[in-house]
Amino acid sequence: MTAPAARLRSLARELSAGELRLDEATRAAHAGDKWFARHEPDAVALPRTTASVARILRFAHAHRIPITPRGAGHGYVGGCVPVQGGIALSLARLRRIKEIHTGDFVAVVQPGVPTQALQDAVEARGLFYPPDPASRADSTIGGNIATNAGGPRCLKYGVTRDYVLGLEVVLADGTVARLGSRTHKNKSGFELARLFVGSEGLLGVITEATLKLLPLPPARACLCVGYRSMAAAARALRDIFAAGFLPCALEIADKFTLAAAQRRTGSRRLAGCEGLLIVELDGQPASVRAELRRLAAVARNAETRFVQRAFGADECERLWQIRREFSYALRDTGLTKLNEDVAVPRSRLEDLFQFAEDLQARSGLPIACFGHAGDGNIHVNVMVDLAQPGAKERSQRALDALFRQVLAWGGVVTGEHGIGLAKQRWWPLAADSAVRSLHRQIKHALDPRGILNPGKFVS
Amino acid sequence: MTAPAARLRSLARELSAGELRLDEATRAAHAGDKWFARHEPDAVALPRTTASVARILRFAHAHRIPITPRGAGHGYVGGCVPVQGGIALSLARLRRIKEIHTGDFVAVVQPGVPTQALQDAVEARGLFYPPDPASRADSTIGGNIATNAGGPRCLKYGVTRDYVLGLEVVLADGTVARLGSRTHKNKSGFELARLFVGSEGLLGVITEATLKLLPLPPARACLCVGYRSMAAAARALRDIFAAGFLPCALEIADKFTLAAAQRRTGSRRLAGCEGLLIVELDGQPASVRAELRRLAAVARNAETRFVQRAFGADECERLWQIRREFSYALRDTGLTKLNEDVAVPRSRLEDLFQFAEDLQARSGLPIACFGHAGDGNIHVNVMVDLAQPGAKERSQRALDALFRQVLAWGGVVTGEHGIGLAKQRWWPLAADSAVRSLHRQIKHALDPRGILNPGKFVS
Repeated sequence: MTAPAARLRSLARELSAGELRLDEATRAAHAGDKWFARHEPDAVALPRTTASVARILRFAHAHRIPITPRGAGHGYVGGCVPVQGGIALSLARLRRIKEIHTGDFVAVVQPGVPTQALQDAVEARGLFYPPDPASRADSTIGGNIATNAGGPRCLKYGVTRDYVLGLEVVLADGTVARLGSRTHKNKSGFELARLFVGSEGLLGVITEATLKLLPLPPARACLCVGYRSMAAAARALRDIFAAGFLPCALEIADKFTLAAAQRRTGSRRLAGCEGLLIVELDGQPASVRAELRRLAAVARNAETRFVQRAFGADECERLWQIRREFSYALRDTGLTKLNEDVAVPRSRLEDLFQFAEDLQARSGLPIACFGHAGDGNIHVNVMVDLAQPGAKERSQRALDALFRQVLAWGGVVTGEHGIGLAKQRWWPLAADSAVRSLHRQIKHALDPRGILNPGKFVS
Repeated sequence: MTAPAARLRSLARELSAGELRLDEATRAAHAGDKWFARHEPDAVALPRTTASVARILRFAHAHRIPITPRGAGHGYVGGCVPVQGGIALSLARLRRIKEIHTGDFVAVVQPGVPTQALQDAVEARGLFYPPDPASRADSTIGGNIATNAGGPRCLKYGVTRDYVLGLEVVLADGTVARLGSRTHKNKSGFELARLFVGSEGLLGVITEATLKLLPLPPARACLCVGYRSMAAAARALRDIFAAGFLPCALEIADKFTLAAAQRRTGSRRLAGCEGLLIVELDGQPASVRAELRRLAAVARNAETRFVQRAFGADECERLWQIRREFSYALRDTGLTKLNEDVAVPRSRLEDLFQFAEDLQARSGLPIACFGHAGDGNIHVNVMVDLAQPGAKERSQRALDALFRQVLAWGGVVTGEHGIGLAKQRWWPLAADSAVRSLHRQIKHALDPRGILNPGKFVS
């Protein structure tokens, strides 16, 4: 499939001025995301209305032109790389918060709204939109929905999917469908709105979302605990759950991550720590204060090196800063970071960390692990010097070994980022033939001409 | 479509002894659910294994025999009435809890396990499966999944869908597909497992579920508050959210319900109450105790008539007893109770109660409302004496008026029970042509011969 220039110009005439761009700079700016793969589209659509999105899809459907929808381009797996050219369809201009309803606990937003902007707006009104992907300052609600974005708070609050009550979706043939509702409960037919959540642009284009909001918890508190060993950190994690706590967040970091963070920050506290937990609580102020004390007692064991507490938003943000340093610290190494986001059954966490350590020894590649321990969702960062001969192949073999082991444990190759291009190689391993066939059946039913994000894991 | 006896005998030979029953008593026992519609199937399948389910579907697919899957038959909308005859496929014999894993926070269960039995088993091990439909002692996990069952605790904990990590599903042609995983987070492809949740037996047959479990909250507490007016109860509800509380449950009842409950129980406390809230909290013991006090202060206003507190499981269960009396009390009237489970945007609760009161005056039919106020999901019970001439038509007109108004507010005709047969008449009103067409596309992709639960809202 390609899109001849004459055809694109004819589409441009159906749209408002500036809604279809053919210039080199715009095309280059829409060739990829945060992953390394890039492919320039033949044109970039920047529609201002749902009607324009529908017009673009009707045209593309009629002429079999590839359409690759994209949010802010902050994905980690190349999901919005327009590998077959055609039109990159950016939702960036649909960036209005249409409504925040304090009585209904609902927000109606266009896909181009940055997630953090929505969170700030609803929190100013005493409401709460929990999903908190690390990229939330830059990424948008539409992209978050298309990838079913997660984040640390998912442990208690669930992922993006759990907040999508309704969607306006433009289907492959240009039909506009309004799915779901603005009620917090709805049993009217199939769960169609949520089928589009996490579908990576392969089933339709999201042009509006009705999101569930919660009452804003009046207080939050954090705990950061350093341990002499990873086993001690893992033991503390089990103890926290056994005490009946379901924290907002329960993050872990391994010794390689901590060593890099120590080099970067000069923190003396981290010296001798081979495992670290960060725990966040929220709720009523008195409860959170009392629970923070109890949690500190539960998390402390014979191998604890330090316990740091934080109460209130400012102190908590300072404490989380160390978590943010992990990524920067790994970047300081100058190596390329292959950030894999596997998830394992929770009881396999220690096995995963041990496996990563052995793999590091075997492959000669530095591997640093940190992430959402409560969910069993760990970012395994394989560090590669791509300038070295054979480095790419070695890293590929290391990832093969990692993914095979994770799947053998009943885990998954991606817990947050999606398949995109980055995991396409492992898709047949991750999904058996019955599951792949079911994906194709759904895909063909909704996009019979295969124009939506072609060249990805289902075609 | 019918299923000639010779053909059914030939299927019986493919199965183990007793897996296909043709006798009148068994067929009569599988003709309906808790709704009034009934239709006898030509045969009842009671498979003992997934392999038998697959054999039955392969056979039915080949010979175009209707298959109507069923759980325990405790649905309220006639969803499992085999209206086109064929085979009623009961999952009752697949009733094994295969695994409860305290490390992974996961249970693997067959569909015929009663929900309460699973809850008891996991709670004995310090774990928690929150979804709590009123029927949980009788209904089964398979039926709960097929209808995406809710319950009071959904306010904080979400519905059945939010606990389904993985499913084994037998598709219309007999293919066995294992969807999802046992990890708490998973971004491997489309959200296919959850597409089958709430699909009312129209897309496939669930033969195993992998469910997410939480740590069991160590304490629970309840508050029951009576008000002189519904407006005061609604005001208290808003105040509870405004104070940053997200209770497990937040139930409401109107004056008609309370009057019936008072007649039944002789409770003096309920005299003069025209609105009632029941609120449940859970968490760490000290937090729950302190929050109960604060909640009582927040919920009290000038029109409060009484405040009753409960701490711990036993006291809470006694307090909930009054909620359970509501249904019995309405049954005491001797009238037929049309239990509609509409959901409205939360800010429309008072409007809904007012509308129900006006509708009662206009239609001459007693109408009692109670339910999950926190979710905006209210059971509107229209009481009919079906022996009276014209009563059925009058109740139909009252429901027409109710549903049109609810939809005009942005509400839905069913928040919990599903469409089934009971809501089929209103399906075209509840779903516009784009949404209905999308349902058909998915249905035809997964069940091209239309053998699964035919005659329902998608065909």
